[in-house]
Amino acid sequence: MQINTQNAICRLLQINFPIIQGGMVWVSGWKLASAVSNAGALGVIGAGSMHPDNLRHHIQSCKQTTQNPYAVNIPLLYPEMDALIEIIIQEKVPIVITSAGSPAKYTAIFKANGCKVLHVVSSAAFAKKAEAAGVDAVIAEGFEAGGHNGREETTTLVLVPLVVASVNIPVVAAGGIGSGAQMAAAIALGAQGVQMGSKFICTHEASAHRNFQEKILQAGEGETQLCMKNYVPVRLLKNAFYQQVQTLENTGATKEQLVQLLGKGRAKKGMFLGDVVEGELEVGQIAASIQNIVPAAKVVQDTWQEFQQTLHKLTNHLL
Amino acid sequence: MQINTQNAICRLLQINFPIIQGGMVWVSGWKLASAVSNAGALGVIGAGSMHPDNLRHHIQSCKQTTQNPYAVNIPLLYPEMDALIEIIIQEKVPIVITSAGSPAKYTAIFKANGCKVLHVVSSAAFAKKAEAAGVDAVIAEGFEAGGHNGREETTTLVLVPLVVASVNIPVVAAGGIGSGAQMAAAIALGAQGVQMGSKFICTHEASAHRNFQEKILQAGEGETQLCMKNYVPVRLLKNAFYQQVQTLENTGATKEQLVQLLGKGRAKKGMFLGDVVEGELEVGQIAASIQNIVPAAKVVQDTWQEFQQTLHKLTNHLL
Repeated sequence: MQINTQNAICRLLQINFPIIQGGMVWVSGWKLASAVSNAGALGVIGAGSMHPDNLRHHIQSCKQTTQNPYAVNIPLLYPEMDALIEIIIQEKVPIVITSAGSPAKYTAIFKANGCKVLHVVSSAAFAKKAEAAGVDAVIAEGFEAGGHNGREETTTLVLVPLVVASVNIPVVAAGGIGSGAQMAAAIALGAQGVQMGSKFICTHEASAHRNFQEKILQAGEGETQLCMKNYVPVRLLKNAFYQQVQTLENTGATKEQLVQLLGKGRAKKGMFLGDVVEGELEVGQIAASIQNIVPAAKVVQDTWQEFQQTLHKLTNHLL
Repeated sequence: MQINTQNAICRLLQINFPIIQGGMVWVSGWKLASAVSNAGALGVIGAGSMHPDNLRHHIQSCKQTTQNPYAVNIPLLYPEMDALIEIIIQEKVPIVITSAGSPAKYTAIFKANGCKVLHVVSSAAFAKKAEAAGVDAVIAEGFEAGGHNGREETTTLVLVPLVVASVNIPVVAAGGIGSGAQMAAAIALGAQGVQMGSKFICTHEASAHRNFQEKILQAGEGETQLCMKNYVPVRLLKNAFYQQVQTLENTGATKEQLVQLLGKGRAKKGMFLGDVVEGELEVGQIAASIQNIVPAAKVVQDTWQEFQQTLHKLTNHLL
């Protein structure tokens, strides 16, 4: 593969396009990850919804289907962390992306075993902690992103410059990025690359259920909302389950009531098994602009092409 | 004044820099508006907090202190609309910016009297309605903006491309814009100009109380929040009054309870009279990046200079 040596994220990750496919529970297994990596961007296996043995299967399948770098995303609240670390080291996973927790404990272990480490942050304060923990880059993810999200509610447009100003390692922008124009905006803000999640849900290689994908194609603006702020903030697509969450929250729900409503397996039910009424559907605000289900490689190519076109158009504003 | 004829917003408004100073209650009177217009951007008198006679005084003072175009911002829920329209027509205000209501009723009246009309929207659906009502341009304002805000919670990064794709008139981006890098991001998204509010609060010419300005300088990330969603959504700086709102909302407050807590004169108390404990303080998320109180002209010049520098840097990413 060609490597874009002009770009800090491409040099770090040894990829051609500074585009990272977001690791997503129930959506991003080896098929999606290897398709993205084969297209010259960084494919990511979302370990959050996998038992250790299943993760090992996905890593091995990914290695069999791409020669290019790929990553595993781990929410640091993962219940079987020790087993997972063992697998990642045994399988020589080149890049680990950590999220939803403190990178202080695990970054050194991954780095000592030759992994590059990126950590997802929702604030400049967390970015500084991640840098101090030794991560190679941070992913600054804004309020508009799908799934779990920060409590600060800072949007990508505001967050990225704050993070860029506060650390000396490369910054990747995430949240609200589904096009080359949005990628150009992120780069204008000082990011060296982008992470795109939602856009990759609607690809042939994603393991998202077709019903979930169709629901995204139909979604208009304002049809996602950040919910469960008194428990773990998460951006959901509006459906019957979301309405139940809202009804509880409008009457001052406690964390315990939300946990009870959530129950077990809500996310699998919605995103993997296709129950778009009672299941939990995690997607970002850019759902409103997703119109087609396409090959993952096309997402990478189209984004890069539109990014370059946008940069060309911007030169018209130069005085 | 020089006019940037390359830019659609500059041609429409007859200005040099495609930067609009947001009209802000208790903050943007004639001093701020004329300083911004004299700097080659568009100064805006915020009529929302003025009785008709006071508005006339501000318009006349603005005309005496600048030869350049300026605008009046009117929330369309303004209680004395007829008196206000009469003044705007009598005083030959060149540009009207409407917000917080439907432009269907008043746009034709303003246009028939020679005013250019811009309308603030929080969704592509509202943008289409504004275009149908005959406005000359729309201002697409995202979730991160200060003060009153849309119910969709769509961020500027997501909103602007949706609006640009749905109308044939020029689009101005607002919300989360306080620097030239953020301006470049907005232009990358397809906007032809930007509206900046919060950044102009911390200027010498703003009528914001010094206590309010100091509170903004001290604000870190995550220190504003969109509140009162069951009444009229508004982004507030966190203080004792905000905490009272939160406490009510966490227990499932009704609209009536919020109206009662709000009482009369909360915004004046906080922003104009400087009670930063019990007053309402409206500011956007970029409060976290505001470090100095400067002349308004410096905001215009610095933003434009950094915008140009950012465009130059972006050309490094061209292949």
